[in-house]
Formats: sequence, C-alpha cells, structure tokens
Amino acid sequence: MTSKGERRGVFVTLEGGEHSGKSTQHEALLRLVSEAGREAVACREPGGTALGERLRDALFATKKDEPHPAPEAELLTFNAARAQLVREVIRPALERGAVVICDRFADSTVAYQQHGRGLDAALVAAAIAVATGGLVPDLTILLDVDPAEAFARAKKKTDYLEREALDFHRRVRRGFLELAAAEPERWLVLDGSKPEMQITHAIWGRLQGLL
Amino acid sequence: MTSKGERRGVFVTLEGGEHSGKSTQHEALLRLVSEAGREAVACREPGGTALGERLRDALFATKKDEPHPAPEAELLTFNAARAQLVREVIRPALERGAVVICDRFADSTVAYQQHGRGLDAALVAAAIAVATGGLVPDLTILLDVDPAEAFARAKKKTDYLEREALDFHRRVRRGFLELAAAEPERWLVLDGSKPEMQITHAIWGRLQGLL
Repeated sequence: MTSKGERRGVFVTLEGGEHSGKSTQHEALLRLVSEAGREAVACREPGGTALGERLRDALFATKKDEPHPAPEAELLTFNAARAQLVREVIRPALERGAVVICDRFADSTVAYQQHGRGLDAALVAAAIAVATGGLVPDLTILLDVDPAEAFARAKKKTDYLEREALDFHRRVRRGFLELAAAEPERWLVLDGSKPEMQITHAIWGRLQGLL
Repeated sequence: MTSKGERRGVFVTLEGGEHSGKSTQHEALLRLVSEAGREAVACREPGGTALGERLRDALFATKKDEPHPAPEAELLTFNAARAQLVREVIRPALERGAVVICDRFADSTVAYQQHGRGLDAALVAAAIAVATGGLVPDLTILLDVDPAEAFARAKKKTDYLEREALDFHRRVRRGFLELAAAEPERWLVLDGSKPEMQITHAIWGRLQGLL
C-alpha cells in the first residue's frame, strides 16, 4: 500500500454530480500542472485502465428493458475498476512523484451508492477498503451544483444513472456536502455554476500550495 | 436477504479446479432434478445474468500483453457478477421453491483469490459478504482432481487463469479441500477422476435427501 511516507506525488480528485463541469476542470488542471513543470497524470472513474474501461462499459451497457444492476453489483463493479486503477496507474505515478488528477474516486461511491442508493455504510466502506488499500487523496474538489440546474445544462440524458429521478441526485449532492463537511482540510467546495475560469483559478490557488 | 426461514428451494453448488468435470455434472443434475418434478434453475459463475456475463467477458478479455488484473480487481469483479446473480436469479428462484444448481459460487473466490492469489482472508470475506448478503449453499459438491491430470484432460489452455502455473492450481485445490474439511455437513467431496456416471450417482444420492 502507498503510505504517506513512501509517496512523493500529489493525488487530486474531482467530485460532483452529473454535468457539474468536472471534465472541463480536469483538462484545465492537467494543463496547468504540466505548465508548472510537473508530470500530470489523468485518470477517470469508472475506468482509466483497459480492464476498468471494459468494466465501465459492462455496467453502462445496461439497457432500459434489462434488470437494473443491483446496488451491490454496481458498488463492486466500480470498486473493481478502482482496484485496477490504483495499482496500475495511481500508485506507480505517485511513487515516481507525479501529480495525479482523477475525475471521481472513492467519495463518488459513498455519495452515489450509500447516500443515493441507500446501501449500508459498512458495506460501502468494506468495498472501498478492498479497492483503495487505504489510499486517500491529498485534495478533493467538489463542484457543487443543483441537480435540476445541471441537467438543464446537459442536452440529453444518456445512461441509466442519469435516468434516475432528481431525488436520487439530490441525495447524492447532500452526500458529497456531508463528506466535505466532515473532512474540511481535504476538500475544497466550489459553486459549480460559477464561470469556468473562475473555478479553475480557485482550484489552482489551492493546488499550487501542494506542488 | 434470504434467510433459511423464508426459503423453500434448495441451493446446490459445484466446485473444483479447471477441467474437473463440473459442466458435465451440472447438466446431469439439472436433468435429474427436472425428471424428479422440481423446477431446476441453472447458473454459472462468473456470469449467469446479462450484466454478469458482460463483467465476466471484461475480465477474461485480458490479453497476454496487457497488465494482469490486480488480485483485488479480480476479487471485486467476480463478486459484482455474483451480487447480480444472487439478486436477479438465485434468491427469487429459491423463494419460489426451485432447485438452483450453480457452477461455482463463493467458495471458488476463497480458493482462487485467497488460497491461490494470497489475498487477505478478511478482504475476501468482506467482498463475499457484500455480494451474497449471507446466502450459503445447502449442498456443495467438490470435484477434486489433481491439476496436472486435469490439464492433461483439456486439449488447450484458453484464458489467463488457465495460464497460471501449476503451483497456483495446487494451492487452489488445497483451498477447496480445507473449506470442505471445515464444513463437512455442507460439502460432498468426490474424486473427479472417477467415471462421470459414478460421480453423478454419488451426487444424486446425496441431493435426493434434500428434495
């Protein structure tokens, strides 16, 4: 396991609901980190490795008329992809001193599977522990937006997660805010409805202190 | 969760190494159960549902030149498929009184991931608990064969699990035997090198008592 002692890199994660602007910030941060002369490693969840992308596809290929993935199956699939990502990409990158910027990580699982789906906190924690081996980000950015507003931004709803009722997405949002409140030193909560450049500036201000 | 109290069906699992003859016995048992006038439900692991089959494919599509699946990723993927199988197929079938015969179940995870790969027993148990919700078979058949003999039976080695060294398969075999020794009332251990009809007869003798 990568303990704080062994690791020389910086591990940053972006969290938030659907269409909260994570991808845009992900790209901007990768560019800024590279320009600052540090190796920037991009990853996204679920996926980020050949195996992880196939697992992601297996889950998201669920058709409207197919039985819905069981919440426990969803929990374990996301964590299977994460287990591979941590060992194949994140841990080696941190060990060689890179800045890893990940679009979603374990906090998404707590927000979606525990707060959204209502899975037991202990089950969720157990699955995450197997996947991460205790790896925790140095900085987590929450792009907080009202789900109704976020979906109005997006042109169409594409996968089964996005077809979930607005109530589900509101529980997910509350989950993220609770996580951030419980660990304020790790989280930076930003209003995702603000202009993109302004958000990038705020994140970069905080991230620079860690480089 | 399906507790013993709610469930009217019978849950039978077949375990053993690669090429131990599980498929042949699976088919024979399904036929015998149907002929005895009971609903027989077949399932196989990993897979057995649309989602589970896609997860199985995602794992087994791992190419020789691709990074090997991390043991934790493998553990979680098998259990994701299992979580779906339990909730979509096994539990509903047991609740309506069917006889479910499953080619591999949680014991395979203990044998392969814990004894074979050396994963921590507590991690393995945690992943299984999330997937099964505590569901345990009424009867588990171990088709015990020496791995060297089993591979000689098979014409070619096809997937990455089968390319593992013989030592790995020997550890898996010892794992199955340990599990069986620890819970003799649930397990029926049979010599998988014996003639097929003889094995079917021995299983059927035991299974009839549960119908």
